[in-house]
Parts: sequence; structure tokens; C-alpha cells
Amino acid sequence: MSRALQWYDAHHDALQSARKACHTREYFSLFAETPDKHPAGEQGPAAGRATFEAMLGRPFEIDQPGTIGYVGDEISPYTCTPLGIEYPRANVDALFDAARRAMPEWARAGVRERLGVCMEIIARLHARVFESAQAVMHTAGQSALMSYAGSGTNALDRGVEALAYAAAAMEDVPAGAVWERRFGSTNIRLRKKYTLVPRGVAVCFTCATFPTWNAYPAMLANLATGNPVIVKPHPSGILPMAIAVRVFRECLREAGYSADLVTLCPDTSTQPLGKILVKHRHTAIVDFTGSAAFGSWVEANAAPALCFTETSGVNTVVIDSVEALEPVVKSLATTMSLFSAQMCTSPQNIYLSRDGIRCGGRRVSVDEFSMSLAAAMTAIAEDSKRAGPILAAIQSPSTLSLVDEMRAAGAKAGRVLMEPKAYRHADFPHARTCSPLLLEVPAGRTSLYGQERFGPIGFVIPVGEEDVDALATAARDARKGGAITAFAYSTDETWIERAEAEFSTAGAQLTVNLTGPMPLNFAAAYSDYHVTGLNPAGNATLTDLAFVTSRFRIAQSRRL
Amino acid sequence: MSRALQWYDAHHDALQSARKACHTREYFSLFAETPDKHPAGEQGPAAGRATFEAMLGRPFEIDQPGTIGYVGDEISPYTCTPLGIEYPRANVDALFDAARRAMPEWARAGVRERLGVCMEIIARLHARVFESAQAVMHTAGQSALMSYAGSGTNALDRGVEALAYAAAAMEDVPAGAVWERRFGSTNIRLRKKYTLVPRGVAVCFTCATFPTWNAYPAMLANLATGNPVIVKPHPSGILPMAIAVRVFRECLREAGYSADLVTLCPDTSTQPLGKILVKHRHTAIVDFTGSAAFGSWVEANAAPALCFTETSGVNTVVIDSVEALEPVVKSLATTMSLFSAQMCTSPQNIYLSRDGIRCGGRRVSVDEFSMSLAAAMTAIAEDSKRAGPILAAIQSPSTLSLVDEMRAAGAKAGRVLMEPKAYRHADFPHARTCSPLLLEVPAGRTSLYGQERFGPIGFVIPVGEEDVDALATAARDARKGGAITAFAYSTDETWIERAEAEFSTAGAQLTVNLTGPMPLNFAAAYSDYHVTGLNPAGNATLTDLAFVTSRFRIAQSRRL
Repeated sequence: MSRALQWYDAHHDALQSARKACHTREYFSLFAETPDKHPAGEQGPAAGRATFEAMLGRPFEIDQPGTIGYVGDEISPYTCTPLGIEYPRANVDALFDAARRAMPEWARAGVRERLGVCMEIIARLHARVFESAQAVMHTAGQSALMSYAGSGTNALDRGVEALAYAAAAMEDVPAGAVWERRFGSTNIRLRKKYTLVPRGVAVCFTCATFPTWNAYPAMLANLATGNPVIVKPHPSGILPMAIAVRVFRECLREAGYSADLVTLCPDTSTQPLGKILVKHRHTAIVDFTGSAAFGSWVEANAAPALCFTETSGVNTVVIDSVEALEPVVKSLATTMSLFSAQMCTSPQNIYLSRDGIRCGGRRVSVDEFSMSLAAAMTAIAEDSKRAGPILAAIQSPSTLSLVDEMRAAGAKAGRVLMEPKAYRHADFPHARTCSPLLLEVPAGRTSLYGQERFGPIGFVIPVGEEDVDALATAARDARKGGAITAFAYSTDETWIERAEAEFSTAGAQLTVNLTGPMPLNFAAAYSDYHVTGLNPAGNATLTDLAFVTSRFRIAQSRRL
Repeated sequence: MSRALQWYDAHHDALQSARKACHTREYFSLFAETPDKHPAGEQGPAAGRATFEAMLGRPFEIDQPGTIGYVGDEISPYTCTPLGIEYPRANVDALFDAARRAMPEWARAGVRERLGVCMEIIARLHARVFESAQAVMHTAGQSALMSYAGSGTNALDRGVEALAYAAAAMEDVPAGAVWERRFGSTNIRLRKKYTLVPRGVAVCFTCATFPTWNAYPAMLANLATGNPVIVKPHPSGILPMAIAVRVFRECLREAGYSADLVTLCPDTSTQPLGKILVKHRHTAIVDFTGSAAFGSWVEANAAPALCFTETSGVNTVVIDSVEALEPVVKSLATTMSLFSAQMCTSPQNIYLSRDGIRCGGRRVSVDEFSMSLAAAMTAIAEDSKRAGPILAAIQSPSTLSLVDEMRAAGAKAGRVLMEPKAYRHADFPHARTCSPLLLEVPAGRTSLYGQERFGPIGFVIPVGEEDVDALATAARDARKGGAITAFAYSTDETWIERAEAEFSTAGAQLTVNLTGPMPLNFAAAYSDYHVTGLNPAGNATLTDLAFVTSRFRIAQSRRL
């Protein structure tokens, strides 16, 4: 039995459980959610750190073809010093040529072989999750826990979920059929054979702040359906993807396939390769996570290649009425502080009536709400034990400039509820940090809040009667500016129904009346559909059938 | 119980059988394949003809909004006289506005309601199939039998097939889930609700020669998933779609929904609306059947709308070796004559070795093969009983010009094996007819045969060693020029395996060694995947999951 089939058998039950979970959409994970339960035991984190540190200041070798030099100028948001790692800069055509040479054999491999290799890749990525977490921390600026859970186990689960859908979509096509019909007086009996054909080379763009979470599903969906993958990481976050590419290549080679089915194509911000890769004549699929600007260029220019995008948007909160204010404010403060709002699901705009919020028997004024929220966020930023784990670090210096710019514009248009400033990280005194900027601006100032303001920037937006109401305004802004998530609070079931209708039309995934320790924007693999495709925040959902069904095609042969 | 749910129940078993057939891909049809078994009985054809004739020379009323005049200059290929029917010319924005107004209620209707209405539409289209067949005959030029079977029952089966896939894709999304996980010491329990959201207004372009076959699946897939449809028929083939739109609207209205979910938007060749419709800001989906030129414009310009295309290509035949020549020649002659090769699946190019064909113990020279084929095709054209039913009529006068042009160019580049000429149709003495042009040209003259030459134009292409071999040459031309079908003859299993590999990579659906009464290019609903999406002949398959999965999106709401 081939290595790939052995792996398929070894991971069969896990994949079947994942497939079941995709249908029930109940809680499921293949992995322990907390680092202390990782099979590597207590030594895991330290060993991962040691492996990471051994990589610093030297070339990261990948034995892929077409290396024509080295690139790499990553800087850790935690130390603000260069990682000093150099990655093979590739001749783009050489990567495509190698991928295309490798493809026919991989296409001929059966579905089970491909799924076996993909599941083994998942297992090995999990084994090395502490190493990968360090890489994510020191490029994206995520906290240790988020690097482990969000960028590690949860991202791997999203990868498995994509494999589950790929398996289902491919199984939908039978291997063959016998077809029989009379034509006139003659019985015609045809044997038909149906073959899954991969589409071609996929290019996977990964973003700076959360690379693995979208990359694993896209890479695995492509590979499972037979397509080679060229990974184009954001120039400031190459290492997590370089580690992943190495693992993918290792498993492919061990299974007897060409490692060149997965390669890395790093570039620099001064010499970007993005458009060249999208327009390459051999690009058949583009998976893109990144800015809305480049994302919409990809959507308009990828054809004839397929494209799957997740960009960004204006995630909104609408507060109509609450039983108690404090738990709502606490949840909002934590979620808006989490990873300094550098997540595609972070809420940005809070809409409420200019008349305030109904709360039990009384009415909370806009002012009272704003002050409570600012106080709760300030408390996080000023608590040396909580600030680091929650706010983490700022990935890009340009985010600090944006915060400054928004502070100035916000002060002019409205008022500053919370002043942003660097906070001192307990473990990394040189970390690039910034406590959140919270602004109150009048409804209608969409030039400020109508698009994603990436980073720790929030807006409280009181809505008067001239704008219908807070809910309608929020839903309209979400639809127009794009939105992945929306959050609503109300004690009124009729209002909640209306919110569900408004946000489903706007295409933002809604969370209602959530308080407590779960981050409001937590998206669970196998259960939460991520991105609807109904607004400009992206066209692809993690994970639905549409994420996988067009990645392969069906050829048939029939004969008497 | 609502009318829609009554219909769902009434058609439940039929839809379930269709869904099963999509998985086994064995023979299945909801309908009798021959007119004599239609429930309308012996009166059916005459009644259909009478209904058709009553439509001639007068306006075709559709009570849809935004009518700003009338258009219509269809000419029957059988009588070469104008039908004289005028259709409502629509204000485009008014159609979109009406569609968008109608959408929310249709979106809120359950999946079963929508499927019920769609299945009832199928049933009523089937009841009126003779009327529709007359419309197809006198616009497309198809024979009576093809208008009934190909454009009638087979097209309806393809529509049901699309509904079966739509049902499966929508069922894959559960209505809700209860999700539970610990965060720290707290148990978080979320109730989640998943809602299918239609993407928006779909524009369905239909072609002149085979309108219903692609239109029914696209219209029904859109409607079942909640999207309104604006039908833009080819200016020379409006009537079949006008009849269909009327039936769609009738059923929607009876079920209590807005008839404006389906409207007709006819245009003229001098004032085409195609680009306006594709680029309309409210167009969310484009289904296109038509020319390769406009199809590739659609593919490049439809974004952010989804697009599903079927255009055209170079369908190839490769003959390596045969047990007996005569049955092969007979099948090729019939299929290349069928509807004067005005089908997207009609073979155009026949490749064989310059050394001829191995046949039993001997070798058939190129010359012998060419002469036999020309003789067999001539026999059909000259047989007054067979010519009409097989060759039927030529849809467009421009096809006759193309035949002339190709005859001249072919005579220069190679030789004319069969001279095209008008044949006398037994029932319609004024029919626009043309017996096939068959040319022999050397391999490499792709300026002649490397693209679709729409109409009764065939090429015999002897391939020498300088072009590797006939199979490689055919597969390369198919990949480059686009191809939907391919046909291969060989007594050598190794060669057949190679043909399967070559054509699956080229993306042409292969038929091997088929002879006998079944037309070589017959594509069976529920069994034959039509168009792969792997070459320029189109990007959408009838029918796979990818044809339906992205037509709707998933919104979710979750709460404690």
C-alpha cells in the first residue's frame, strides 16, 4: 500500500468526523484548543521557540527550482529588529514550469491518495505548531495564545474543513456508469468513465496579519483537487508560509510525488510580483487575502483564472437595547482591543440612537455609553497583565500613521473618546504597540468610517432620525463598505428579526446579544460560515461547497 | 398548504428520481422521447402548430413592466418569410427594478416552495412542448423531431437535472445548529441560524440555434436558488424564449409570487443590449450561450457578477484504426449532417494519419476514407426522405456566406471533397438549406480549421510525422480552439488510453468507437457532463455542483 494510502487510512476517521461536523455544524475540533494539551507536552513551546530562534539571521533554504537570489526584510513587531531571514527569490516562470511538470502525476493519483497526503500535512503542521506560532508572533504581531490557537489549531481545523468539502464535492462525481437507451430498434449501451481534472496552477496570496488562517484552507482545497500551489506571502510575513511550504513539500516528497506541487514565491514591497502572478498565462486559480484595493483588482482581472477573495470591510455593531450595559461594554471593549483590531472580523463602527440605549427601565445616553466603553478599553490597555495578551503588537508602522491621521480627522469631525498611545508590553519592552483610538463622530461622516480603518481604530456613531435609524444605517454601511461580521444587541425580538433580515441582505454574519468570555468575533471552523460573498469584503466563504466545486472539472469518456 | 408546496409534493418523486439519476448517471428521463407518446396524444403536434400559427403576425404580449415599444424581425428558415411577431421592448432599468422588488419575497420562500414552482414550470413547458417545438423550428431551423426531443424533452430533462443539483447544494446547508464550547471556565452555547441568500438578478443570454437547451437549466438553477432572471434572447430566436417566459410567469403568479421574477428583454442586432445587461450595476449572475467572441468578452467583463458560459469550439474526430470502415463513415456522415452541424457538439475536424487508417488486415488510404465519407454525406443530402429530417434548415444567411468563403479558401489550400449546395426540403420548398461542404486540407492550416466554422463545414486533415501524430494534433487544436466534444476510433487499447488522457487534459468530452443509430454527439441529461471548462469553449458544465453552488450565498445569525 502506498504511503499516501496509509496516511489516508490513518486519518480516515478524523476526516469522516470533520465531514460529519460540516453537516451538523456543531462544535468540533481535531486539536486541543490550549497549548498545554498539545502532544509535545510542556516542552512544546520552548522547543518551538528554539527552532524559531535557530532560523533567525540566516537563509531559509527551500530546495525548489528557479532560485535567482534571496529576499527578506521581515521585522518583528515584538522586538522591532529584523529577523534577518532570507528566502529564495524565484524565477516565476520556473515555478510555473515545475508546477505544471508535477501536475499530471498528482492528477492521476486518486482522491484518497491526495486526501491522505493533505491530512498528513495537517498532522505535521500541528506537530510543528509552536514553531509556526513563533513565526506568526514575530511577523504578524499576534499574541502567543492567538498565534497558537487562531493561527494554529483553528487555522488547521479550517484546513481540514476545506478538505471535508473537497472530499464531498469530488465524491459527488461517480467513477463511471453504464447507460442504456433505445434508438429506434437498436439498444445502445455505453460505458462511461468520469475523470476529475484539476484546473491548473493556483496562486495563493497570504496577508501580513493572519496568514495561515486563509492559506491552509486554500492550499489544501487546491492540492486535494489536484492543483499545484504557488504561495505568494505578504513581504512582511513570509516565515509562517515558508515553514508551511516546507511541510507541504516534505509530505509530497515522502509520498513519492514532486515537491514542486507547492512552492514559495516571496517578493518585496518595492518589487511586487502580485500582478505578474495573477496575469500569468498559466495561473488557473487565485486565492487572495489582503487589501480591498488589490482584492478588487484581482476580482476584475483574474479571468480566465478563478478567484477566491477575502479582503476587508466595515464591521458594525448596533446597540438597540440591553438588559444590562456592563457585560455588553466589557465584551465590546475586549473584542475591539483583541489583536489591536487587526482581524478581518474586528468590529469597527458602533451605531446607536442619538437618544441612547434602552437599558432595563432607564435610558443610557450616548455619552454614558461612550464613556463606559472608553473606560473599559482604557482599563485593558493600562493593565500590564492583560494589555499584552489582548492588544498584542501592531504589525505595520503604517498602522500607527493611520491611527494618527484618524485621530486628527476624528477630533475635527467629532470627539476623541480614547487617546491612542503606545503601551508597554510586559514581555517585549520594544514591541510596537498602540492602545486603541476611540472616536465619536456624527452619522454621515462616512469619509471617516465608511471604509475599513485597519488597526485599533473604533467609531461610536450616534444616529438621528434623519438617517432612519441605527440599524438601517449600519446595514447600509456594511453593504456598501463591505463587512464580514456584524453585532447587534436588543431585548426586542421584532428588532432582532429585522436585524437578521438587514444583515443577511447586507451579507454580514451576525452575532446577537453575545456577552461573556468568548471574543465576539470568534469564528469556529466547521460551524461559522466566514464571508458571505454578498458585499465587497470578499467573494469566497470558509467553507461552503462553492469554495471547492469549481477547483476541479470533470472529463468523460464513453464507449460502446 | 400553499400552491407551491402542493406542487412540490406533486413533483416530489420525479425530483427525487432525478437526483438519484444524477448520482448513478444511468439512463433517465421524465418524459417520453418520441412525440407519439406525449400525453397530448395524436392531436398534440397539430394543436401545437395551430397555436404557433395563431401567434404569427401579431404582438406577443407579456404583461411585464417597462414596455417602451416593440421589437421583432424573426424570419423562418423554413419559409424564409418573417414571423411578423412583435415582442415588448423593455426599459432595462424597469426590468431590474421589478426583479429586485420581487426578490425578497421569493428569497424568503422556502427551498421546497421554490423547487415546487420550478418543477411545475417544467411540467407546463412539457405540456406545451409542441407549441415550443414549432417556435424552435421556425427560428432555429431545427427539424421537427429535434425541436421536440432535443429542444423539448431533453432540454427539460437538463432543466430538471439543474434543479436536482440546486436541491442538493441547498440541502447541504443546515437550517441551524447548536454549538457549545468552553471558554476558560464558562460554557458558551450558541444557537446558530443559517439562511440561504440569493445573489441577485441573473441575466440569461440564449443563442439562435439551440436556445432552450442551455436556457432551461440556467433559468431554473437561478430561480430555484432565489434569483430573478432577465432573459435576453438572440434577436433571431426570441419566440421560444417568449413562450418559456410566459410559462414561468404564469406559474409564479399562480403560486402567489411576483411574475416579474422572470422577464424578457429582447433586442435587435442593430441596437444590441448585451453589454449593457452584463455591465448593469444590478447584474449579479450572467448565463451566456453564444459566440466565442462575445463569450470571452463576458468572461473578462462580468465581474463582480458571476458568469457561466458556453460558447463554441473545434470538435475533433481522430481515426486511428477500425474493425470496419463503413459503420464509422456512416455515423460520421449522419452526425456531421445533423442539423447541418449547427450544434455546439457537432464534429468539425477529422484527423487521420497521412498513411491512412488501419482497417482489419489492410490500410485504408486518406483518399479512400475521404471519398467514402463524402459519398455517405452526399447520399444523405440527395435522399429527399432523409435530407430534411437530418440536415434541417440553415438558421442564418451568414452561414451560407461562410460556407462560400470556406469553399474558396479550402479549394486553394487543399481540395473540395463535397460541394455544398441547396437541397430541396420535402415539406418546405422555400427552406434555407445547404448540403455540407467537406474539405481536405493539410495539417497546419489552422487558419482554416483552428476555430469553429459554424454550419455544415467539415475538414479532413491528414497528419504527417512532422506533426507528431493525428491524436496529438487534434488534442492540441481542441485545447487551443476550445472544444466540447471529441470522437476517437481505434482497435488499440493503448491508443485509446492515450486518447482519453489527451482529451481529458484538452477538456473535450470523448466518445470512443461509437457507431450505430445514436448520433455521435447526443448528450444525455443526468449522465453526460456537457462542457468541461478546461478550454475556451465555455466555463460551465451541465450539470455539476459548480453550476449551482455559487448562485446562492449563506448568511448566518448566532446568539446565546
